[in-house]
Amino acid sequence: MTVSRTRMSAQGPEVSKLIAGYWRLKNWGMTPQQVLGFIEQSLEMGITTVDHAMVYNSEQPFGEALALDSAIREKLEIVTKCGIRPCGFGELGAKAVNHYDSSAAAIQQSVDASLNKLGTEYIDVLLIHRPDFLMNANEVAEKFLQLKQAGKVRYFGVSNFTTDQFELLQKAVKALIPEGLVTNQIEFSPLYMEPLENGLLDQCARHGVAPMLWSCLGGGRLMTPNDERSQRLHDALRIVADECNLSDIEPVVYAWALTLPGNALPLLGTSKIERVKVAVQAANLTLNREQWYRIWEASTGHAVP
Amino acid sequence: MTVSRTRMSAQGPEVSKLIAGYWRLKNWGMTPQQVLGFIEQSLEMGITTVDHAMVYNSEQPFGEALALDSAIREKLEIVTKCGIRPCGFGELGAKAVNHYDSSAAAIQQSVDASLNKLGTEYIDVLLIHRPDFLMNANEVAEKFLQLKQAGKVRYFGVSNFTTDQFELLQKAVKALIPEGLVTNQIEFSPLYMEPLENGLLDQCARHGVAPMLWSCLGGGRLMTPNDERSQRLHDALRIVADECNLSDIEPVVYAWALTLPGNALPLLGTSKIERVKVAVQAANLTLNREQWYRIWEASTGHAVP
Amino acid sequence: MTVSRTRMSAQGPEVSKLIAGYWRLKNWGMTPQQVLGFIEQSLEMGITTVDHAMVYNSEQPFGEALALDSAIREKLEIVTKCGIRPCGFGELGAKAVNHYDSSAAAIQQSVDASLNKLGTEYIDVLLIHRPDFLMNANEVAEKFLQLKQAGKVRYFGVSNFTTDQFELLQKAVKALIPEGLVTNQIEFSPLYMEPLENGLLDQCARHGVAPMLWSCLGGGRLMTPNDERSQRLHDALRIVADECNLSDIEPVVYAWALTLPGNALPLLGTSKIERVKVAVQAANLTLNREQWYRIWEASTGHAVP
Repeated sequence: MTVSRTRMSAQGPEVSKLIAGYWRLKNWGMTPQQVLGFIEQSLEMGITTVDHAMVYNSEQPFGEALALDSAIREKLEIVTKCGIRPCGFGELGAKAVNHYDSSAAAIQQSVDASLNKLGTEYIDVLLIHRPDFLMNANEVAEKFLQLKQAGKVRYFGVSNFTTDQFELLQKAVKALIPEGLVTNQIEFSPLYMEPLENGLLDQCARHGVAPMLWSCLGGGRLMTPNDERSQRLHDALRIVADECNLSDIEPVVYAWALTLPGNALPLLGTSKIERVKVAVQAANLTLNREQWYRIWEASTGHAVP
Repeated sequence: MTVSRTRMSAQGPEVSKLIAGYWRLKNWGMTPQQVLGFIEQSLEMGITTVDHAMVYNSEQPFGEALALDSAIREKLEIVTKCGIRPCGFGELGAKAVNHYDSSAAAIQQSVDASLNKLGTEYIDVLLIHRPDFLMNANEVAEKFLQLKQAGKVRYFGVSNFTTDQFELLQKAVKALIPEGLVTNQIEFSPLYMEPLENGLLDQCARHGVAPMLWSCLGGGRLMTPNDERSQRLHDALRIVADECNLSDIEPVVYAWALTLPGNALPLLGTSKIERVKVAVQAANLTLNREQWYRIWEASTGHAVP
Repeated sequence: MTVSRTRMSAQGPEVSKLIAGYWRLKNWGMTPQQVLGFIEQSLEMGITTVDHAMVYNSEQPFGEALALDSAIREKLEIVTKCGIRPCGFGELGAKAVNHYDSSAAAIQQSVDASLNKLGTEYIDVLLIHRPDFLMNANEVAEKFLQLKQAGKVRYFGVSNFTTDQFELLQKAVKALIPEGLVTNQIEFSPLYMEPLENGLLDQCARHGVAPMLWSCLGGGRLMTPNDERSQRLHDALRIVADECNLSDIEPVVYAWALTLPGNALPLLGTSKIERVKVAVQAANLTLNREQWYRIWEASTGHAVP
């Protein structure tokens, strides 16, 4: 069973419908050879797109794995993120706080560091990791254009932006780069459905931009429920899994996210290749509307109005 | 006294400023002849537009009344709604939950059933009843175009959509049907004033689209107050009614809604023709700004900032 | 040290980056000569733009000061506001409530009264003071055009509008006046940061419109904290002031607001020229991102996500 392919937007990059998230790679305790094995086995399932960020510290170990096989880079689409300054990077020592920095200099510095750590010539998709309240949209757009012209980054997107923040940057980017932003990576799961009603998913659909979805499994709480709501969801997912003759509920969760109309792209987060195989079952799974709304109802605790 | 006429949008349908809501028709306990009498008496007051929905089960008894007078259909503008799948319609039996379905097939099926029950060749305005989180805007727009070209539906709108949901579908519909959506039917009353500040009324005005308003009387709580807030509103409405030499407060409530700048269209909901006559007094009533804001203040419990 | 100049929008008026707010002028207990002195000393610091409103009752005493020096009017940009009907103005006597009135007649009446009280031929920027739920956007836009053509008002803006209210009026105004609205004057301070996330600042930046910011000092609570949060902010501001070798925290607050990317224009509110001098130190102050976010963190009580 393999995952199908799609475009993030009409002129955007081609990616896999499920994306491997490497945000905890540093804690996986793998040798470069083991990471390479994980990448290869994921590729066999059609998962060609990988998600990183400067602050995950995942680029270095990922790059060490890539270095073992010169042919593998071209088989992947690498998404990474910039714009967070972790505590300690500031010039004020102990007084420094984590903060965001989407200045041209910070973006350039982050991209150069990412390219270096990954050991690659280009990033497929660069995201602004968090909305920086001090973002100068025109400055960001101009830096994006430079990076594109330099061949260092092919496409651009954002993460965790509100609709108004997206609208602002999208306008500035489109003025310089015709295809504009190609994604907004947002949190979405049966435990966090706000994007259904706060306009984020509507906006992505209106712009023809595929949302990347992080934390679809709710940090694992759907599999190991710890309160009434997650238990209710677990039970509802279990029933749908049974109806679909599946022994695991993860594929139901991913299929539930893939059912969204706007070409949603769920991120996986597991280090275990057997869990990836389980998740990939979602690729062949179609939930009907009644099943989808049953999970919605389990999440909200009430019927639709 | 008769109700005036307006257009829902520049290229939209002509309708009456007050609209007869038949959502509880099935419980009115009327014979077809009695329903016909109610329709005729409403028409004499200028109320030509009627509101239905598949899930109200009001189309069948309404159609039975229309069947008694072959000339009456042409005197009416029929609004009806599709897109809700009540519990039991699902293929999963006892496990089924109420859900929304705005798929092309569901819209087609609902329209055909409505036409059949109403015994008419066409629907004037078809609304998507509730925002379906799984709505594919392009699929809906294409189905709308087919229904228009087939002569089955003349105009299209939505109900209970947020601003982002409206923006998404409006863009898709306008790409195929020049006049786009012609209304968003939303809840609005002195007891529920959120649309004043959540953008819904601003958006309708910006798009030149008349909002239809449901539950203007707050489910009757304005006439029979059951808490401090509804009592305060009742008293404020009573004072304005006195100032206008009216014995009832309903016309004040409808006039309050009609004062909104964006061509708002309140729905009535009564089965009693004498209450319709009372409501129609709103057509001749103009509230000044001070009276309007007095009711706003009674609702919020505080002065404007 | 003097304040720099900017444009409110690409075709908008040139103004000073700090604006003198006269909303409490009536309580300052100054003679016209003293007010003139205050204006002149502010001008020496580059503060050429002044903020009034019909309901502040500040126009009369300000006009009396202007009358003492026929050359001074041309050195100023006068912003004033219309659209509030205070209690007692209504035609209903004791029953009257404060309300908003953005009718053409009310705007005309307010402008004529403002011109008369200020003793000037023109207003530089006229704002609708509060969003009137009964605002007819086209009626307002037409009145704006008339006032502009009559030379009575040069530019137009709004105050305290939500994003949807702004979008509605902006569209109507742009259809008649190419430069459209030139500002939205909103509340913003370290104690009230909602505009960072509710879209207001993003919208201003997207429209290329400078937001005017009222109550930047949080009504004085930042200097004399009265709860845990304002104390925490006071302390954080104090540390930044120390880092910048400043004895006062006000310039840090204003510099914090001036750091916003969308050309924000803070209002001052003090009657004491020495406090103006202190505030003007912000003109030479540049906060780095880490300092800016430290204040944000002190306000929210938590680190950025």
